[in-house]
Parts: sequence; structure tokens; C-alpha cells
Amino acid sequence: MSSSANTIETEKPSMVFTSLLVLIPISMGLRYMQAPVLTTFVASAGSIAVLAEWIRRGTEQLARHAGPTIRGLVMVSFGSVAELVLALFVLANGQASVVQAQITGSIIGTSLLGLGIAILAGGLSRRRQTFSSSKAGLQSTLLILAVIALLLPAIFDYTARQDHLHNVRLTDEELSLGASIVLLVLYGGNLAYTLITHRDAFADEEANGDRSWSLGLSIGVVVGCTAVIALEAEIVSEVLTQTAETLRISTVFLGVVVLALVGTSADLFAASWFARSDRMTLALSICIGSAIQLVLVVTPVLVLISAFMDSPMSLVFGNPLYLFAIASTAFIVSAVARDGETTWFEGLLLVGVYVLFALGFFFIGPG
Amino acid sequence: MSSSANTIETEKPSMVFTSLLVLIPISMGLRYMQAPVLTTFVASAGSIAVLAEWIRRGTEQLARHAGPTIRGLVMVSFGSVAELVLALFVLANGQASVVQAQITGSIIGTSLLGLGIAILAGGLSRRRQTFSSSKAGLQSTLLILAVIALLLPAIFDYTARQDHLHNVRLTDEELSLGASIVLLVLYGGNLAYTLITHRDAFADEEANGDRSWSLGLSIGVVVGCTAVIALEAEIVSEVLTQTAETLRISTVFLGVVVLALVGTSADLFAASWFARSDRMTLALSICIGSAIQLVLVVTPVLVLISAFMDSPMSLVFGNPLYLFAIASTAFIVSAVARDGETTWFEGLLLVGVYVLFALGFFFIGPG
Amino acid sequence: MSSSANTIETEKPSMVFTSLLVLIPISMGLRYMQAPVLTTFVASAGSIAVLAEWIRRGTEQLARHAGPTIRGLVMVSFGSVAELVLALFVLANGQASVVQAQITGSIIGTSLLGLGIAILAGGLSRRRQTFSSSKAGLQSTLLILAVIALLLPAIFDYTARQDHLHNVRLTDEELSLGASIVLLVLYGGNLAYTLITHRDAFADEEANGDRSWSLGLSIGVVVGCTAVIALEAEIVSEVLTQTAETLRISTVFLGVVVLALVGTSADLFAASWFARSDRMTLALSICIGSAIQLVLVVTPVLVLISAFMDSPMSLVFGNPLYLFAIASTAFIVSAVARDGETTWFEGLLLVGVYVLFALGFFFIGPG
Repeated sequence: MSSSANTIETEKPSMVFTSLLVLIPISMGLRYMQAPVLTTFVASAGSIAVLAEWIRRGTEQLARHAGPTIRGLVMVSFGSVAELVLALFVLANGQASVVQAQITGSIIGTSLLGLGIAILAGGLSRRRQTFSSSKAGLQSTLLILAVIALLLPAIFDYTARQDHLHNVRLTDEELSLGASIVLLVLYGGNLAYTLITHRDAFADEEANGDRSWSLGLSIGVVVGCTAVIALEAEIVSEVLTQTAETLRISTVFLGVVVLALVGTSADLFAASWFARSDRMTLALSICIGSAIQLVLVVTPVLVLISAFMDSPMSLVFGNPLYLFAIASTAFIVSAVARDGETTWFEGLLLVGVYVLFALGFFFIGPG
Repeated sequence: MSSSANTIETEKPSMVFTSLLVLIPISMGLRYMQAPVLTTFVASAGSIAVLAEWIRRGTEQLARHAGPTIRGLVMVSFGSVAELVLALFVLANGQASVVQAQITGSIIGTSLLGLGIAILAGGLSRRRQTFSSSKAGLQSTLLILAVIALLLPAIFDYTARQDHLHNVRLTDEELSLGASIVLLVLYGGNLAYTLITHRDAFADEEANGDRSWSLGLSIGVVVGCTAVIALEAEIVSEVLTQTAETLRISTVFLGVVVLALVGTSADLFAASWFARSDRMTLALSICIGSAIQLVLVVTPVLVLISAFMDSPMSLVFGNPLYLFAIASTAFIVSAVARDGETTWFEGLLLVGVYVLFALGFFFIGPG
Repeated sequence: MSSSANTIETEKPSMVFTSLLVLIPISMGLRYMQAPVLTTFVASAGSIAVLAEWIRRGTEQLARHAGPTIRGLVMVSFGSVAELVLALFVLANGQASVVQAQITGSIIGTSLLGLGIAILAGGLSRRRQTFSSSKAGLQSTLLILAVIALLLPAIFDYTARQDHLHNVRLTDEELSLGASIVLLVLYGGNLAYTLITHRDAFADEEANGDRSWSLGLSIGVVVGCTAVIALEAEIVSEVLTQTAETLRISTVFLGVVVLALVGTSADLFAASWFARSDRMTLALSICIGSAIQLVLVVTPVLVLISAFMDSPMSLVFGNPLYLFAIASTAFIVSAVARDGETTWFEGLLLVGVYVLFALGFFFIGPG
């Protein structure tokens, strides 16, 4: 699961976050006044990051009004809503390749950068931190399996093209739809497993915090913020190409690094916060869980929805750098999750590998 | 080791299996009468599956008449005889590419589908099942090493073709023979390790069951069933191409899914049976051991024998989907074997990945 | 760390090693007299192996005159000096591709052959040997991360060539320089981690052995041997191409197998010695540490230095066999290091995989 039922009891940051909501009218005003695209992009992307954090809080509050199974479902359903809405609007603007870049970037962003920063944040003031390796181990096995499923269509496509089969496009899409359905079935199994048959092993011990918000307020915040994210995502996707041209970078780099971090910033923030409080099991669970949810839910849902759009997105991640980045991430996470403890150096390694991948995507250059 | 010295005490299934032997005369009659190929194919393939189970039982009984080292050798020697004989006849009919498909399919069939179904079968009625992770860990390391050895010739071939070396065919075959010999030496080392120097760590505690069959009967069943499998394998390989055309699927898909499952069905059945009896160490050992034996024995033996045939089979698994499927399987098995316990969800994941691969092979389509 | 602060108390081998120093004047005489290249090559390569062992001993003695942090820095700085000097001279002779082969060969030479022989040497007379899996686990995670960083530029290059980008050469070099700097930063972090913040976890318990040599003698041996290695490396690189022609092998094979083993022989010798003394933690640490140092220090330093030479070496390991060999090695080491114990069969497996890779490189043939 990408989110947690634990409260981040941070009264002052709350005030900061409230004041950051001013980015929303600013970004809309900038867009209305046809301001320079870079300024508009920054304001809109910032708004989405702030709104994603508000959705995370609203979801936490909402979950406290429900029993454990429903609570888990609520956390899961709204855990990736920001990434999903952002990706949908970019997709609707005909930029399927940017969405693939965003998904790749979100996977490496949460698993390498997010987890790395969290481990660094927790490890700089502590000799070593421990976590439950049984839960992290299951999650990393799930991530490896999910990643294999994600890579399969690309290998298939490569095989088919090598053999000069004539009807590749057709079968690519059929295979993407088939693989998406298998991924969603596996995810359904994962829900049954973590929320029903083995619920106790995955229960967050501190789930029953204060209900600071009423049920209505919680629902209102989640629904309202999701609606506003949609508006901001529309602005972001409109100014995307021009922003890339202004910065002289590729839209791929913008998708892999910038959009990905905007969509996953709430998880990154939460993971670092828990790591600093020495709750590493939760921090790992957020980061790995977020990557799993991207592969098992967000991506197949996007493939299925896009099949009804003008620009269908296939599961074929054709860029070898994407495949390498995603596969490497799964193995690195598996290696880190195995031993049940973290030190600052492991955090540095994760951040270092992320920087290497970002370098690689940067050098692909405008094109 | 792909088989076990434990008896499956199933009196009634024995009767079912005895009656299934009627498939043998049926399949031969159908072939003689030039019946529709699909019917002939199903009857012959079914016969092979039944005969493989009888060989497994005969081998178990035979093993009880020997000391521990000879017993191990007997179990190992006849553990993959059905796959080997089937592959030999397909190879003799000039279908080397189908044999590569069958080997790939057997590896993923035992390790993903077989193990997945066994874990599901055992896990649906139990919260979690445990197994000895030290034995499974060694086996999965061995599988990874064996798989790397299996993939090497393909990478070599790709490298050589990329550099436009002129004598690729020649060196492909030489490298295949060299690599096959190294694989057999490693397997000899594995036998010395598990049967001599570290025998106690690998002994099946319940190996000394009843000797229901005499020595002569045991030998007769094993030799007789192997001979009949040869006859049935000849029929299957003769009607293979027409069956694929009738079903409008590729011979590759027929090899990867159907032939592979026919050859390994006895192991799949035994693994599920042991999993339901909560003997997961044995179930894992059968599935992973079967995959190891395919890579370390069956494949190199086929390469060496085929060097004297008209259609030599190289170790070059040229289809990238094969490489990806085999490599992924090794890593997934390693991830599952690491933690020493299984739950139904892990079984579902393994079956899910198998379905994804089968989907991929299906979409390659007739050609 | 590729070397250890422990003394190998081998008085008689010391005499053997002293007498082997006679190879130095022999090799120089042979070169001066224009003797057959093969003889000259063998004598020079042998000299480098002997000198590397003397540097290892000198470094050990030098380290005993320092406090723990400086000691660690000394061990690290001179641990790979033989490989580095040899590679530099081959590079200066315009043979960048041979240096890439040497680096690849050194990585698989220490991790597969060196570790395999050490495990065999220790395991033949013992049932099983144990080691600290926490230290080996961290090292193998570090190796996986380092290897991913090493492979990244090749994947990038492949992606860029696939897309027919026009300015590939330029960006290849820029990315190589960028990645090299990230690797060196990670290595700096590793030094801070093992020598400062978590020093106690990595301290070799027996580091405070006798100071047999004075500070001056220790420095003299290290500096003197390094200087002589430079002379011998110049000879080796001059006769390299002719030696390959005489032996009818490729310079790639000469680099991967012969030069690599010459450069890492001191580590191989030390690892086997410690394994026979049942100090497997140290043996693993030497082998894995040597591979890490090659990736994190030797390779980026060579890239940075070569940027000022006529024949710059990029981080693009273009040969798919290199990529496969390096990646496989990292995963195999990770699998072996995981369980905390070794038996002779694991050693045999590692040696077997090394032989397979050597076979592959041999069959690429002269070209």
C-alpha cells in the first residue's frame, strides 16, 4: 500500500501546507493571463504536489471512519490518485510517451530517490535502523514479479520485430490489454491477501489515531483536491512541450524526473518523515508499496482507459533505458530489503543510482 | 533431484492411473487408422503423461531395493526420462526449434506453474507453510548458475552476429558442445555433493517406505514404460505440425505449453500432492530440482546426441522471449525460496507470471 | 577493501617469492635482446604478478605504522595499484578495448575464479565453512549497485544508437565522465562509512600484527615495486598484439583472461590462503572488495585520466558478453554471499561459470 494509516502529527507543517494552497489560484491566474510557460508550469506542478499531500491527509482521516478492510481499500484507492489523474490528462493530450516516462520515473523516484532520502534522513543521526524484513521481503518479491510482467510486452515486441512479423502493432495492443488484466487480477489477489486472509500481518499498529476531521470533511477534501488536481494536470499537460523547449530538455526527461517527482512527492515526504521517527518498516512499506501500486494498478488502468482514447498507450516500454532502470530498481530494492537493517550509506547508494539514471535520461537530450 | 523417494500412498488414484493406460492402445489405433490429427495428438500426449507417472512410481520402488547412493542415482537417472525421450523424437523429426521451446516451457512449467499450483494447493487451507530454506537456497543458487550457463551461448551468438564475424555457425556449435560438457561436469559435482560428501543434508527422511513391488517388477515397469513412451513420442512428433495448423497456433506455443506440460506432468502432480500434505520442502525440491535437471542434464545430453544427427540442436536459445522467461524464472524462484515460508498469494503470483509468459508465446502467433 | 591488514605468516613462500624477483631482470633482458615475444610476455607478466604480491605485503606493513583510519586508506589506495598501472600503460599504447577486456576479466576473475578457488581450497578438507553474512551482504549489495552504474552508459549508448541520434559519440563521453564522478563520490561515501562512521563493524580483528618492516622499508617496497610494475607494464603492452598473433588468440581474450589474472593474482593468492585457514569472512571480503574497487575506483580513474590521452576510454562496455558477464557475476556473488556458509560445491560452481565465460571469450576468436 502506498499510504499509511498513521498520522503525521505535524501542526506547523500543516500551516505551511495550508498557505501553499495559494499556488492554485496563482497557477490558474498565470495560465489565464498567458504568462511565460515556465512560470505557469512551476506553479501548476507545485499545486499538484501540495494537493497530493492534502489528499494523503484526507485519505488518512477518511480511513479512520471505517473498519479495517474498508480502511485498507480506501488507503489503496486514493494512494495513487495524483499520479493517475496527472497521467490521464497528459495521455489525453496525446503524449503517451511522456506518460511512460512518468511511470518509469515514478517507479525509480519512489524506490531509489524516495527510499534513499528516507534512509539518509533516518540514518544520519542513528548508527543503524531496523525494519521487519518479512513484510519488506514479500513486497520486494511482489515488485520483482510485477516488474517482470511490465517488461514482458517490450521483450515480446522486440522478438516480434526481430522476426519481421507483419502484424506487430495489433498484437502489441492485444498483449498489452491481456497483460493489464493479469496485473489487475494479481492486484486483486494482493488486496484479498493483505486486507482479508492475512490482514493481521499487515495491520498498521497505530491505525486508530484521532479522528480530527469529520467524515464529511474527509470526503470533501479528498474529492475536492482530486477535482482541482485534474484542473492543474490539464494546465501542466498543455504547457509541457513548450516548457521542455524553453528549458532545452526533452519531454522524456521532464516526464521521468519532474512529473514523476510531482506525482509521488506526498509519498516521498511521508517516507522521510517516518524514517526520521525511526519507523523504517513504515517508510519502506510506503516507498516499495507505491512502486508496486504504480505497476499493478496505475499502469494497467491507464492502458485499459487509453484503449478508448485516440492515443492508446501500450505496455511496450520501448526505450531500453526504461527497461534497465525498472529492472535494476526491482533488484536493488530486493537487495536492500533483504537484511532488515539500513544505514546512511545504503541511502547514499540508492540516491547515487537515481542520479546516474537521471544523468542517462538527461543526456538523451532534446528530441 | 526431480523425484523423491517418498511414496504417494494413493490407492484410488492408482486405479484411476491404471485405467488411464487404455490411452496407449487408443492412441496407436488412432494413428494406424489415420484418425484426425488432433484426436491422435491428444491421445498420445495423454499416454505420455500417464506413462511418466508410472515411471516415477517404478523408479520410487526400484530405489527402495538399493543403498542410499545408488538410490539417489536411480532417482536422478529416471527423473527426466519422459522429457528426454519426447525431446529426442521431436529432434529426430528435424524440429530442433520445438525442442528448445519444450525445454523453455518445461523450465517455466515446473518452476512457475508447478510450484505455483503446489503452493496454492497447500496454502488455500493453511495460513502459511514453511520449508527448509537452506536446501531451497542452494538449489536456487544452482538454478541461477545453470541458467547463466544456458544463456551464455545466446549472448555469444548475439555478440558474434553484431560484429559480423564470418564463422558464426561453426563457433556456435563448438561453444554449445563445450558449454554442454561444462554443464555435465557441474552436474557430476552436484551428484557427488548430494549423494556422497553431503548426503545426510539431502537425505529424504522417509525414503525407506514399503517395497510394494519386487525388484524385477520395478525394473520391468521403468524399462517398459520408457519403451512405450518412445513409441508415443514418435506419434506425437509426427502429427505435431498438423496439430498446430489445425489449432491455428504456432508449433512454438505447442512446444512451450503443451509438450512441456506433458513431459513434466508427473513432477507437477507429485509436487501438488506433497504440498497438500504440508511437506513443502519436498514440493519445492521436486519443482526446482526438475528445472535444474532440465538445464544441467537433459539439455546438454540433447546437444551432445543431436551433434550426431542430421538436425543438430545448439544451445543458442535465439528467441529473446526464451531468454527472458528462463532468466526471470531463476530470479523469481530465488526470491520465493529465500524466506522459508509460502502463502497462497505467492502461489497465485507464480501462476500469474506463467500465464503472462504463455500469453506472450501465444501472441507470437502461427509462423 | 581489496586487501587485508592480516599477515600471511608464510616464511617459506617468502623465500620463493624473493627468488621469483629474478623474473624482472630476465624480462628486461629479453626485451632488450628482442627475444621472441611470447617469452618476453610471459616473463613480464610473471614479474607483474610477483611485484603485485610484494606491494600487497609492503602495504600491509605500511598500514601497521598508522592509526586505523589512515591504515584503511593506505590499504585501499595501494590495493589495486597493479591493475591500475598495467591498465594505464595498455591504454597509453592506444588499446582502450583491451583495457575494457582487462577490467571485465578482473571483475569475473576475482569474484568467480578467485572466490571459487578459495571456497574449493577451504572446502575440500571441511564439511562447511561459515562467514559473516552481514558484511558480505553489504558488499554484494554495493557490488550490484556499482555494476548497474557500470552498465548504464552501455545501455544509454545502445538506446541512442537505436534512435539514430546524431551526436552519440559526444554524449557517450560526457555521460562516461559524469558517471565516473558519481562512482567516485559513492566510493568516497564507502570510505567514510567503513573507515569512520561504522569503522568497528569493518575492523579486521587481527590488524595489529608484528611490524616486521620499518616505515622506510615499507614505503620503499611499495613505491619501488610500483615503479618497476610500470616498466614491466610498458613491456607487456608493447608485445601484446604480437603475443596474441603468435598464440592465435584475440587481444580481447588475452585481456580478459591473462592480463586480468596477472593484475589480480595477489588477491587470488591471499583469498585462497585465508580460506584454507578457515577465515572465510576475510576471503570473501578480499574477492568481493577487489571487484568493487575495480568498478568504483579503477574504472572511473581510468576514464578520467584517459580523457586527457589520445585514446580516451569510455565507460561504454559495448560487447554484450562483457555486460552479461559482469551482471551475472554480481548476481551470483549476491546469491553465494546471502546464506553465510560455503561448501566445496559452491566453489566448483563459481569456477565452472568462470570457465564458461572464458570459453565464450575464447570462441570470439582472433579479430
